[in-house]
Amino acid sequence: MRDALDGMTRFDDFQNSLGIAPNMLTRRLNTLVEAGLLERRRYCEHPPRDEYVPTARGRDLRPVLVLLLAWGNKHFAPEGPSVILVNRKTGAAIDPILADAYTGRPLDEPDYAFAAGPAAGSRTRSDIGPPLERPWRGNRERRPPANRDPQTRSK
Amino acid sequence: MRDALDGMTRFDDFQNSLGIAPNMLTRRLNTLVEAGLLERRRYCEHPPRDEYVPTARGRDLRPVLVLLLAWGNKHFAPEGPSVILVNRKTGAAIDPILADAYTGRPLDEPDYAFAAGPAAGSRTRSDIGPPLERPWRGNRERRPPANRDPQTRSK
Repeated sequence: MRDALDGMTRFDDFQNSLGIAPNMLTRRLNTLVEAGLLERRRYCEHPPRDEYVPTARGRDLRPVLVLLLAWGNKHFAPEGPSVILVNRKTGAAIDPILADAYTGRPLDEPDYAFAAGPAAGSRTRSDIGPPLERPWRGNRERRPPANRDPQTRSK
Repeated sequence: MRDALDGMTRFDDFQNSLGIAPNMLTRRLNTLVEAGLLERRRYCEHPPRDEYVPTARGRDLRPVLVLLLAWGNKHFAPEGPSVILVNRKTGAAIDPILADAYTGRPLDEPDYAFAAGPAAGSRTRSDIGPPLERPWRGNRERRPPANRDPQTRSK
């Protein structure tokens, strides 16, 4: 998937990059197509050849993989990272962190919390009723209960 | 793991939150301890009781889970998200994106690329030799080859 998000689309290229058996690669590509992360496109009729292009769902996974890579580099690469993230123009190493799209400000750990969303079921509501001073603006109708009394918790 | 990162530490609390069988929860907690994401701490001797606290490695996984949550909300929740991210003080919804820790600027897709790091093997070097105009500053000694001649690609 990382190769696909870096612009790779063809079977032979994936195989060269990953160095895995063709049947294994076919299985992986099929799984990613079925999951809606890649789209199969016929680019040649004779002989029949398909290429694999990331869908919107697949493209949006890239930031997740980027953070996962940074996490792995920090905690699982005592000899130094084998893949890093760089600025494409300057070549400078990038250290990816979270920011809020609305404010543009970096997100520090204490700033944010998980909270029940509009489609939360009763279990989610009682379990992660958020420690908020004001409720989420888009969630006025169905705000989670303010108290977290274990008696009312669903089993 | 999300519960643990939200401050939960005790077996009974995890079980209430997740609603899974005790032996299943024991197995999951053991897996997370073995993976170095949680640390087991004895908090009561009689009867013997352990609590589970995220390690540094586990805490650093939180941003990854946050982005994964946002990705799932966008692509797998047609009826609206059941868990969202909010500012702990204001209750405002947060839309998490990537930024660069060094510059504080949001990372747009075209800005960055994967590149071979200091510990990259020859396969990684030949496969993701980066399209850089200047090499990564910390990588001068072992910069990846500038050309990507398929003849020299390791098999």
